[in-house]
Amino acid sequence: MSNTFGEFLRLTTWGESHGPGIGCVFDGIPAGVVIDPEEIEAALARRRPGQPLTSPRSEPDRPRILSGVHEGRTLGTPLSIWIESVDARSEDYSRLSHLYRPGHADWPTQARYGHRDPRGGGRASARETAARVAAGAVAEAILRTIAPIEIVAWVDRVGEIGAAVDPTMVTRAEVEARPVRCPDPVAAQGMAERIVAAQEAGDSLGGWVRVVARGVPAGWGDPLFGKLKALLAQGMLSLPAAVAFESGDGIASTYRTGSVNNDPYEPGPDGPVPTTNRSGGQLGGISSGAPILCGVGFKPTSTVARRQSTVDRDGAPVEFEGTGRHDPCVLPRAVPVVEAMVALVLADRALARRAAPPSTHDS
Amino acid sequence: MSNTFGEFLRLTTWGESHGPGIGCVFDGIPAGVVIDPEEIEAALARRRPGQPLTSPRSEPDRPRILSGVHEGRTLGTPLSIWIESVDARSEDYSRLSHLYRPGHADWPTQARYGHRDPRGGGRASARETAARVAAGAVAEAILRTIAPIEIVAWVDRVGEIGAAVDPTMVTRAEVEARPVRCPDPVAAQGMAERIVAAQEAGDSLGGWVRVVARGVPAGWGDPLFGKLKALLAQGMLSLPAAVAFESGDGIASTYRTGSVNNDPYEPGPDGPVPTTNRSGGQLGGISSGAPILCGVGFKPTSTVARRQSTVDRDGAPVEFEGTGRHDPCVLPRAVPVVEAMVALVLADRALARRAAPPSTHDS
Amino acid sequence: MSNTFGEFLRLTTWGESHGPGIGCVFDGIPAGVVIDPEEIEAALARRRPGQPLTSPRSEPDRPRILSGVHEGRTLGTPLSIWIESVDARSEDYSRLSHLYRPGHADWPTQARYGHRDPRGGGRASARETAARVAAGAVAEAILRTIAPIEIVAWVDRVGEIGAAVDPTMVTRAEVEARPVRCPDPVAAQGMAERIVAAQEAGDSLGGWVRVVARGVPAGWGDPLFGKLKALLAQGMLSLPAAVAFESGDGIASTYRTGSVNNDPYEPGPDGPVPTTNRSGGQLGGISSGAPILCGVGFKPTSTVARRQSTVDRDGAPVEFEGTGRHDPCVLPRAVPVVEAMVALVLADRALARRAAPPSTHDS
Amino acid sequence: MSNTFGEFLRLTTWGESHGPGIGCVFDGIPAGVVIDPEEIEAALARRRPGQPLTSPRSEPDRPRILSGVHEGRTLGTPLSIWIESVDARSEDYSRLSHLYRPGHADWPTQARYGHRDPRGGGRASARETAARVAAGAVAEAILRTIAPIEIVAWVDRVGEIGAAVDPTMVTRAEVEARPVRCPDPVAAQGMAERIVAAQEAGDSLGGWVRVVARGVPAGWGDPLFGKLKALLAQGMLSLPAAVAFESGDGIASTYRTGSVNNDPYEPGPDGPVPTTNRSGGQLGGISSGAPILCGVGFKPTSTVARRQSTVDRDGAPVEFEGTGRHDPCVLPRAVPVVEAMVALVLADRALARRAAPPSTHDS
Repeated sequence: MSNTFGEFLRLTTWGESHGPGIGCVFDGIPAGVVIDPEEIEAALARRRPGQPLTSPRSEPDRPRILSGVHEGRTLGTPLSIWIESVDARSEDYSRLSHLYRPGHADWPTQARYGHRDPRGGGRASARETAARVAAGAVAEAILRTIAPIEIVAWVDRVGEIGAAVDPTMVTRAEVEARPVRCPDPVAAQGMAERIVAAQEAGDSLGGWVRVVARGVPAGWGDPLFGKLKALLAQGMLSLPAAVAFESGDGIASTYRTGSVNNDPYEPGPDGPVPTTNRSGGQLGGISSGAPILCGVGFKPTSTVARRQSTVDRDGAPVEFEGTGRHDPCVLPRAVPVVEAMVALVLADRALARRAAPPSTHDS
Repeated sequence: MSNTFGEFLRLTTWGESHGPGIGCVFDGIPAGVVIDPEEIEAALARRRPGQPLTSPRSEPDRPRILSGVHEGRTLGTPLSIWIESVDARSEDYSRLSHLYRPGHADWPTQARYGHRDPRGGGRASARETAARVAAGAVAEAILRTIAPIEIVAWVDRVGEIGAAVDPTMVTRAEVEARPVRCPDPVAAQGMAERIVAAQEAGDSLGGWVRVVARGVPAGWGDPLFGKLKALLAQGMLSLPAAVAFESGDGIASTYRTGSVNNDPYEPGPDGPVPTTNRSGGQLGGISSGAPILCGVGFKPTSTVARRQSTVDRDGAPVEFEGTGRHDPCVLPRAVPVVEAMVALVLADRALARRAAPPSTHDS
Repeated sequence: MSNTFGEFLRLTTWGESHGPGIGCVFDGIPAGVVIDPEEIEAALARRRPGQPLTSPRSEPDRPRILSGVHEGRTLGTPLSIWIESVDARSEDYSRLSHLYRPGHADWPTQARYGHRDPRGGGRASARETAARVAAGAVAEAILRTIAPIEIVAWVDRVGEIGAAVDPTMVTRAEVEARPVRCPDPVAAQGMAERIVAAQEAGDSLGGWVRVVARGVPAGWGDPLFGKLKALLAQGMLSLPAAVAFESGDGIASTYRTGSVNNDPYEPGPDGPVPTTNRSGGQLGGISSGAPILCGVGFKPTSTVARRQSTVDRDGAPVEFEGTGRHDPCVLPRAVPVVEAMVALVLADRALARRAAPPSTHDS
Repeated sequence: MSNTFGEFLRLTTWGESHGPGIGCVFDGIPAGVVIDPEEIEAALARRRPGQPLTSPRSEPDRPRILSGVHEGRTLGTPLSIWIESVDARSEDYSRLSHLYRPGHADWPTQARYGHRDPRGGGRASARETAARVAAGAVAEAILRTIAPIEIVAWVDRVGEIGAAVDPTMVTRAEVEARPVRCPDPVAAQGMAERIVAAQEAGDSLGGWVRVVARGVPAGWGDPLFGKLKALLAQGMLSLPAAVAFESGDGIASTYRTGSVNNDPYEPGPDGPVPTTNRSGGQLGGISSGAPILCGVGFKPTSTVARRQSTVDRDGAPVEFEGTGRHDPCVLPRAVPVVEAMVALVLADRALARRAAPPSTHDS
């Protein structure tokens, strides 16, 4: 179903932007995993609106675990999490129900369903990603029982301003040190200025988030549609405003020759070790042992305080100018969401590998 | 499962590069769809090796339909297609079983499964895509019963050589007019020269394939993980050598401001019509009525006739230089595969829409 | 996943007996279906404990719809329902965490998960079926938009006391007329007396529930694992205490010869009409146009106020005598649950049929 | 999809009775499992027509493994098996395309698909079960790598003739000793006589097959829809002519009181051991450590050489009398199919358990 992600660990999210809340049911979790509600809350706090440079909507985003945990550990049964919505000012949106905002899913949703909740974009709202972040924190707890994996995402470019970040070293603390969530201090400064300027101009900016997962052993992932890159691509492109994805050096690779692009191997204690990492830690969609690296491109926020031509529900042309409580740039808040998607994919494939482990026969 | 794609139309492919063949089971097909075996064969002929600029492996790629069709029409039961392998020269690969080729899935596959078929990359071989092309032809036959949709892919860039192509007009005939499958004659000439030069230099090239689907009505696709862009991204990144994906103007959008990037609407006979198409025909992952547009970036072929450092199965460092029958550039043959993936995604969502159609209630 | 039922309509239930509540996410629902919360509440009221002949646990079972509905109609997005638990007296169960009750899932659950919620059977509790009943009411609302289908279940036998019921005529009103939910007044009287006697004796009873779905057109269901009988069997055997299933005359058929068991056809306005209905309205798992009929056998409630030998968590033999708030016979409360499972299966297959409808080609 | 069974091990079968063959794709198999083609062939030989008491159709049923195995061991990739059809005398069925046989799926299939392959029942044919038997042999090979499990099915009743069989001891050799596949020699004799008499009278018989799986450790299976009993019920009711299912003492349990039906526990080396096995080795759908026991009821074969009233495709009443090559009683040939379904369910849940194993935390 369209609202479910993962095969061995299945996350189903639910909730409209301005309903009683959003939430998820997360199934397939092994029993005995320690769940720390404060960890989930901390993850949500990073995605929460109301931070500098972001939407002023103020949601406490307190997750409530309704099932699946007993005495602090998972039961192997579905974990149900509900994040109540508090600051849903639906009146802001009443006028939106009569027209289709450019760049938003309003018209396609109307064409798809014939009946929609126009308040805040309904199901297309970025608010849905809170449920993913909560589940991502759980996925990290699962991964912790399997391998010491570190997942760190950061804002790598905003508009034309790119950062210089070493994926083998970057930490979440460095990322969190600045509201724009870019660990390169110079770039971060420039990004923040641009975002403020765009906001003042009633405009918005896009860019790229990059993410690294360090510590993934060789041999995670499966051929074809269970390739890490395929699952990551699906997960990332399912995010609001996501428009592009690359695995490893992705886009740069397309300009290279093979002799330059291949990563040579050298002997290592547990098998071959790639001496470069142009492939972003995967070949054929299966991890090589090098850090998993990928990037997600986001378009600029569609809501802008500029006059745009559109059409109302009666088919008449109208002018529309956005107001509402929107981020001038989604990237800083997308960082924990991108980390969550990586955690979900890795934990899913870790369980896939456990279900069907490698042959112990020496072939 | 890792070998199955689609939800309402489920394609499961099977087969290793040098086994008795490759094939697929395609389930969920409505009854009564006319199946023309020659159409499937024609599609396979476009992907087939042995064409100019491609691998000299010579496979007739005759699809044999083993079930699901009676008197030329589908039965609503699974369609099983088998494409026998004829020219599988396994001896070419015997030496490969003892080392891990750089840029290939050899080592990750070994780490994942502990036992692998080293001949021709086994399951990671591009030969698997023949099964997708066969199913894609069936998906096009299904789509034909629903809407007059045209899907056209082309090679848009090879290395640094980019093409100028009008996605609203380009035809398969124009694409097929040249072996490099680029409809821009000047670019096509340059691409072909570069590919030949790379081949002579024992090297390889990457680039981008772009694809358009014209005629998709507004309202196909579903929120979240059933977004067209998410399914297309998964499908494309599941292809061998695919390393990047963009939906619509994707990468270019990340540099723009929202006021520039949004597509305005004007009134049309069936609802709002976007006057530009930067979003590539989808918003929130649901079609807007404009042509669906996306691109796939491929890395250069990993097999190059250059000395590369790697490690053998005993952990010792070795030098490896590729020979074998490989394409110096996968893009020309990837064109029909990319079209097949688009057809599979669209047909899947067309059926999703039929299962849960829009409300007829006037809201 | 183990907690999800259905393919085109996917019901995922969550919740432990003594947690904050139980609930479900129901995905795949078409947009525009009218949802009446009172209808869901009325369905839950029929399953609720605290009725005559049933457990004294007192739960208001107020369903709260958290998503998927806007202005009284479904949005095509997941419907999340939460039923808060109020009267969960966990102290009753504290002593149970140290031993494994005979006839209950305690020991297998411990062996499966290594960590369990012993209060009230955790996930194995019949309380989970409230979520199914809520979803079943929604499934009936979906079916109502497709065909005028009536689903009626009843208690057909308790211990040795069997009822005489005409499945072509029986109504829910007749079933609801008595606490034991048997529409045959004489049998109902006997059943009630037996249940009271069993309860007084500290014992319990089993029996059969039968169910009919009238108005299902010919041609619903699919071959093999999507057969109506296969999906019904899975759904019914997933219920607590369910131990047997028959489709149509099922058990009786196994004693007959084919010449007696086959249903002859006569011409009807929409195709052949079976003149008898030994097959219970399906052949090859696809509906024939006759009423769908099946039965579910339930074992006697496992909790009895009799001394039974068992083992505690330290492996020592102990005697156990049940108390707690348990039904002496689960069948009366199982009636709405069985109806819900039928509604879920039929609605799922109705959508399957819409996704892949019959050929319109005249073959 | 309707043609796929299992979640962690996914079997997809394909093929119509009179097409070029039937087959399956079996996905999710761990790498390194030894596959012995002769074992698959031997399993198919037991299901094959042309044996005493069965249909005279003569099929060699040689399975051809097209993928997934290299050097005698599974690769972790999909295993594709094709069983070519040789003796498909379609002319026998030409007259059947114009009418709907009573007791068969002809009319419901026509109503479902609008276009069908009338030859031999198409997809509804028991011939499809050959693919399950082949996969079942593979599932047994997978199970062998996990636990020493023995699965034995037998014909337990034909019409009124029941057998006395000790499920804790019965062996496949004892079952195979007689064509009727009943290990009780006296009952077997009676059954065989009845079947011959029914055949001579142009009639057919039904009955029950029972099956035991010994050696299944406690803790296999999952709550709700992944309960062993639920998956077994779905699997068994997906078989042609299957009309009833019971888990453990199933039907008999429904007549008992709880104090009689519960299985007491006594201490054992690995936890509690049930001292009786009325529950058939599972509680709450999870194995208890006792042998898994269940039964499947089959109706009498629908093809009988007696005049029956039916309707032709133009809606006119006609008389029909079966001939063709049909079994007068499906039970003997159903025995290996029932074993295959048990093997598929157990292997699926064994992998489910490996993906999400019990907590190692001492709770």
